[in-house]
Amino acid sequence: MNEFDFINKIRGMAQERCASTDLVRGIGDDAAVFKSSSGTDVVVSTDLLIEDIDFRRDTTQPELLGHKALAVSLSDIAAMGARPRWAMLSIGLPDDVWKSGFADSFYAGFFQLAARYGITLIGGDVSRTPDKIVVDSIAIGECPPGREVFRSGAKPGDQIFVTGFLGDAAAGLRLLERGVRLSSGVKEPDANVDEAHERPIDRLLLRQLQPEPRVGWGLLLGEQQLATAMIDISDGLSSDLNHLCAESKAGALIEATQIPIDELVTELTGRRALDPLMLALHGGEDYELLFSVAPKDVSRLPKRVDGISVTRIGEIKEALAGVQIAEGSKVWALEPGGWKHF
Amino acid sequence: MNEFDFINKIRGMAQERCASTDLVRGIGDDAAVFKSSSGTDVVVSTDLLIEDIDFRRDTTQPELLGHKALAVSLSDIAAMGARPRWAMLSIGLPDDVWKSGFADSFYAGFFQLAARYGITLIGGDVSRTPDKIVVDSIAIGECPPGREVFRSGAKPGDQIFVTGFLGDAAAGLRLLERGVRLSSGVKEPDANVDEAHERPIDRLLLRQLQPEPRVGWGLLLGEQQLATAMIDISDGLSSDLNHLCAESKAGALIEATQIPIDELVTELTGRRALDPLMLALHGGEDYELLFSVAPKDVSRLPKRVDGISVTRIGEIKEALAGVQIAEGSKVWALEPGGWKHF
Repeated sequence: MNEFDFINKIRGMAQERCASTDLVRGIGDDAAVFKSSSGTDVVVSTDLLIEDIDFRRDTTQPELLGHKALAVSLSDIAAMGARPRWAMLSIGLPDDVWKSGFADSFYAGFFQLAARYGITLIGGDVSRTPDKIVVDSIAIGECPPGREVFRSGAKPGDQIFVTGFLGDAAAGLRLLERGVRLSSGVKEPDANVDEAHERPIDRLLLRQLQPEPRVGWGLLLGEQQLATAMIDISDGLSSDLNHLCAESKAGALIEATQIPIDELVTELTGRRALDPLMLALHGGEDYELLFSVAPKDVSRLPKRVDGISVTRIGEIKEALAGVQIAEGSKVWALEPGGWKHF
Repeated sequence: MNEFDFINKIRGMAQERCASTDLVRGIGDDAAVFKSSSGTDVVVSTDLLIEDIDFRRDTTQPELLGHKALAVSLSDIAAMGARPRWAMLSIGLPDDVWKSGFADSFYAGFFQLAARYGITLIGGDVSRTPDKIVVDSIAIGECPPGREVFRSGAKPGDQIFVTGFLGDAAAGLRLLERGVRLSSGVKEPDANVDEAHERPIDRLLLRQLQPEPRVGWGLLLGEQQLATAMIDISDGLSSDLNHLCAESKAGALIEATQIPIDELVTELTGRRALDPLMLALHGGEDYELLFSVAPKDVSRLPKRVDGISVTRIGEIKEALAGVQIAEGSKVWALEPGGWKHF
């Protein structure tokens, strides 16, 4: 199968799985064309995934990588409080990977997640690479004007929240680096799996390999104007809180004991001489949402959205206070310690 | 300079060079947000450029590559008959290239072209790669509904046209492969250069290294509803005409003697045992526009747009006729012979 046959196959899958009346032209032309809903803003994000930097071929599976490529971009759209609608995928593969059928499984994982949120794949590019897999994922969403949640809106006194648990993905990565591998194949997170048959450790590995974007939370926080500022935790809580505070020209004080850490992380990392708090602070790739809420709105926050809880971890302060963390009676500066490419 | 400092620098350049009232949020948040003009469709395209597949570090310059990354995506938007407005750039660099200052020059080339067409850089991603440079360029445009020009609208009897000259970029590539190098640095194509001081051969090399998107032609053909179908020539005339005909469920007959080939290509390739017609048919990367025009509209076509001529090369036929080329009294099937990744 040459690349044009392959593109036609993907085109057929995209048409079949995600028909949309707003799509004027999808895959198969020089560019994709869509109608943005009347009076909405267009929200667009792009994320590169590079083999041996962002993932390793021997520790993941093509389906999981296809899922993750879309998930990380949907997470960006969620962090704007917007509704994801469209996606594009540029993929570069070495010749041997192309011949291995990798692309079929990769797109299967992508479409599985896309279908869950009604995302239509509208275009992309396919290229050969000398030796590494390269993916650029683009997500496009919509938002009523004024409902976007920027990084820049946090005010002193706002309460700081985070969805879900932190450190899981970093714990999963450390386990992969130490040779632990997934015992089973891809799981549909929605599926009614028999938990008794799932190794607990697989759950952490999948938090690294198959992250779930917090689309429901993002939408709710945007639509109900509950968040004053928001960012998704991709680099790590310490780095992303610093980003949010820098854009908001504010400081913050978070409490170490309030950071939601999964018991499984504490248990599994404790045995392996890893510090769960360090993983939660600096680990990155959790793709949870970090956001600030004005004091008057805190009581309006739902306990859960799509089964995902939310936890208050601190408070926005004046810029002069800097970004700090309290552990018992000790308070220290929380330096960005998360992922940096350069 | 770490990546966050760098992103802030690019953000400053983007704000300074391309202020736009329609931009709600550019670089520096989880995603970019813009207002699409009321009642227009959004047109979006993405192109991967991979080192040692699409370019070589030793035959180009960072400024030229920055220009080309944007140019190839603008060409896609032009081929839809749309107006390019926004761009995003994902760039992956090996550590040594990052330290070399490559990125500064790359973005300088990008911004030089962006400024010419009033394009605003609104986002992107920066990543490290193990050893190769990777660029994904995304362009977003606008088009009044119904004015898009698809690949699929060509009807038997329509006349086939192409902008500019074909084979230049392929000739430039062959020269680069044989060791010919650019004698001088980047040239602003608009600048009033003293032609006497420019080596003629540099012009061909620059057609490969610094292609010019036909934005003006694309817009005119869309706005005035002159083209029934259109595609940009990136893979090669033979491949791209076959793409257009496949989407239009039509055939075509083009005339070899009508294909516009630059005298310089004939002269320079003749000396090097290259066939100019083969370069023009199968060479690719000219980023000229290939389009069909209904007979009644042919007389409305301007002779030139932005100084670029247009040439009639053939006619759309019934699908059963296939895609053919006539050379004198001989007629043969024009198989797609252009670039294929796989």
